[in-house]
Amino acid sequence: MADSPNCDLKSLSPLQLFERVTEQGEKVRALKAGKAPKDEIDAAVRMLLSLKLSYKTTTGQDYQAGLPPKDLVLINNGTAKEEDEDLVDPWNVQTSNAKGVDYDKLIVRFGSSKIDTDLINRIERAIGQKPHHFLRRGIFFSHRDMDQVLDAYENKKPFYLYTGRGPSSQAMHVGHLIPFMFTKWLQEVFDVPLVIQLTDDEKYLWKDMTIEKAYEYARENAKDIIACGFDINKTFIFSDLDYLGTSAGFYKNIVKVQKHVTFNQVKGIFGFTDSDCIGKISFPAIQAAPSFSSSFPQIFNGKENIQCLIPCAIDQDPYFRMTRDVAPRIGQPKPALLHSVFFPALQGAQTKMSASDPNSSIFLTDTPKQIKTKINKHAFSGGRDTIEEHRKYGGNCDVDVSFMYLTFFLEDDDRLEQLKQAYTSGELLTGELKKVLIETMQPLVAAHQERRKQVTDEIVKQFMTPRKLAFEF
Amino acid sequence: MADSPNCDLKSLSPLQLFERVTEQGEKVRALKAGKAPKDEIDAAVRMLLSLKLSYKTTTGQDYQAGLPPKDLVLINNGTAKEEDEDLVDPWNVQTSNAKGVDYDKLIVRFGSSKIDTDLINRIERAIGQKPHHFLRRGIFFSHRDMDQVLDAYENKKPFYLYTGRGPSSQAMHVGHLIPFMFTKWLQEVFDVPLVIQLTDDEKYLWKDMTIEKAYEYARENAKDIIACGFDINKTFIFSDLDYLGTSAGFYKNIVKVQKHVTFNQVKGIFGFTDSDCIGKISFPAIQAAPSFSSSFPQIFNGKENIQCLIPCAIDQDPYFRMTRDVAPRIGQPKPALLHSVFFPALQGAQTKMSASDPNSSIFLTDTPKQIKTKINKHAFSGGRDTIEEHRKYGGNCDVDVSFMYLTFFLEDDDRLEQLKQAYTSGELLTGELKKVLIETMQPLVAAHQERRKQVTDEIVKQFMTPRKLAFEF
Repeated sequence: MADSPNCDLKSLSPLQLFERVTEQGEKVRALKAGKAPKDEIDAAVRMLLSLKLSYKTTTGQDYQAGLPPKDLVLINNGTAKEEDEDLVDPWNVQTSNAKGVDYDKLIVRFGSSKIDTDLINRIERAIGQKPHHFLRRGIFFSHRDMDQVLDAYENKKPFYLYTGRGPSSQAMHVGHLIPFMFTKWLQEVFDVPLVIQLTDDEKYLWKDMTIEKAYEYARENAKDIIACGFDINKTFIFSDLDYLGTSAGFYKNIVKVQKHVTFNQVKGIFGFTDSDCIGKISFPAIQAAPSFSSSFPQIFNGKENIQCLIPCAIDQDPYFRMTRDVAPRIGQPKPALLHSVFFPALQGAQTKMSASDPNSSIFLTDTPKQIKTKINKHAFSGGRDTIEEHRKYGGNCDVDVSFMYLTFFLEDDDRLEQLKQAYTSGELLTGELKKVLIETMQPLVAAHQERRKQVTDEIVKQFMTPRKLAFEF
Repeated sequence: MADSPNCDLKSLSPLQLFERVTEQGEKVRALKAGKAPKDEIDAAVRMLLSLKLSYKTTTGQDYQAGLPPKDLVLINNGTAKEEDEDLVDPWNVQTSNAKGVDYDKLIVRFGSSKIDTDLINRIERAIGQKPHHFLRRGIFFSHRDMDQVLDAYENKKPFYLYTGRGPSSQAMHVGHLIPFMFTKWLQEVFDVPLVIQLTDDEKYLWKDMTIEKAYEYARENAKDIIACGFDINKTFIFSDLDYLGTSAGFYKNIVKVQKHVTFNQVKGIFGFTDSDCIGKISFPAIQAAPSFSSSFPQIFNGKENIQCLIPCAIDQDPYFRMTRDVAPRIGQPKPALLHSVFFPALQGAQTKMSASDPNSSIFLTDTPKQIKTKINKHAFSGGRDTIEEHRKYGGNCDVDVSFMYLTFFLEDDDRLEQLKQAYTSGELLTGELKKVLIETMQPLVAAHQERRKQVTDEIVKQFMTPRKLAFEF
């Protein structure tokens, strides 16, 4: 490719062009450093200028070394990230701030758009009801092309939802429910079909785990997901290990994506190295492919080019930035996205939640007593050291994990506002706030457990059977 | 991995160990060059010595820089190859010698074994009949573990055959038939099942070709393959694009291989670069997976660990060296191999045959007249410039393409020997030798065309339907 820069520049994506300019710049530097013949240097410089021009024509931006095109900002571990920035990729979320990741900065770095009041109001008009509290409270805070989805919806054009989970263990915690609770709401208010990918292949590739175990976790996790209340007639849940071997369309889309993404690109986007296995390197295509309706011929009656909307936590965005870069080159629409913030660990928003540490969150299998003990013992408090100080100066809701959890799970806006006022003013003590959280979480988890019990193997099988969904396209 | 060299050395393959030693050696050099603290250098040297010891324990060979372990010799384009060596990999075959590639050297470089008289005699005893002329004439000249296959066969243990083709165009030439003619013979004499992979996904990834076109070529090529006379009850032909979406076992084996091969390894084996698409990088696992019987649960009744024997041209060996390296680590037997020489272009053994140049070979669609014209006009002759000189000094069978073609297609050993004597002595002229070739090829191609006409879409469908084959395991 490096020898014929002009023949196919038009077919290159902005990211590819960016890489070509960068490579050529390095070549020029190397030639100059190596004191190469003048005509060789001149030729290389001419090529560099021509590449920069193509970059500008394609992206509308001047090339800036180290600054990839907007909408495709790299988050390579450490290299594109500034010293004091948060680290966010599909495998790492790190921040030194007790309030958690700085999401406004992340929107700028990732090149997505903020979900602002205008968009929330527009959603309210479109669906004719009050938007979910995850939207009202900024828990889903960022998006890509949500206005296009609404345009289409208002013009009676269909779309579908796609979300997923990596089944790394049997144990799911309440934080894992956030995208599913929101997706369930989206499915209801927009009345659209939904596909849920369980990336058991990813977990096999990344973890020290057998294929059989990964598949078993996928089926166990499916039960918790189903217990969120998805419509069995409009929802298809699939394990990659299973579905790849039963779908006529899925692998074709995977290989299409794989043809249009280079190792250089996944290295930049995901930080892969030469020592990574080829399974990891090609996996991003497998998470990309469900963004295209032709991956599900049975659902969409073979209809292609149906718009996809992906609700997910923002750490999954790199996969879909890549997908959106590839989509037009394989004749597919770009998926739209709705991004959520991260769910904080009980110990505080700057610490990492871990399925292997049962005290880092409330698990879906916890008893009422376990929930009470965990919250009382481990939930990081924004309260003061003594009751006197607390009464005098008040608590800090911005870092108080009990209050954060309530913003996720307490639906009553007025009650939440009252709690905030009372806690901030010092009227409400930490113990009292924790009590509210305990009383919110205990019935919520118990109800989930009750619904999960109803999810028989037969029901799982139905959800996971490729079939036509109850929707006309 | 680089930080904990001792914890898992036992689980590493010889090639991985080789890479670890090489990396560590580079690290030591870099530390010394950078004048690092003495204790840091000492620690790195100790680690290097310990790695070298592990390498020796595992491979029984001393580590030699640039010389990967036997059975796994790298053929990275240019780097591992010496100046005057032939270039042989799945996408390139280059030699400057008119006699063609030096196969004895290739055996040493690839670390395979020569098919010698002892092995041929043993095959004859095992099957109770004269071995195929491809074996007798050194057309299949190299192998891996064929004696193990014969051990198993003599102990009534089953094995299966696996071969394939990359359907890069509709046009197949007579050279493409070589592995299939030989495989058909193996199927008959050993009475074993056979799987034939059509790598339409590979062609889509490597060529400027749509998925639909690649799949169409796969089906067209399947007709020519079926026309070779395979037993419909014992042969399964599959397109990757098709079969991946219908098999419960294939993808699982692919992802297992993909977990155990790094980018560093495929870079070394296939010469991939950072600019290659992730589809190419992960493809070797797709060609590897049919070496494992669990990729075909429907054929083998779910039985795993059945020995596989792969007849193929030697340029495909890199795929299977990789497969053999991975096999024990995923609990599978290593496939055995039988390697053939390359089929020469009409213009001479050092030139490249190309499906896009109709004059470079005899195509399966050629008319008798086209065959005659091509041979007379293009077949490189080892004869002398004038009839007088030819009569005096004789022709050179080593470089004469007509004679080479006859070694492939003229079954009668005595006749071939007579022709050789007569041509070498000068008694037989080039035109007369060409006439023998024309008279051999015309009926052979016509018969193929006749058989291909009988191959209906229904028959193709039967061959390509995943099903139980007529064989008990």
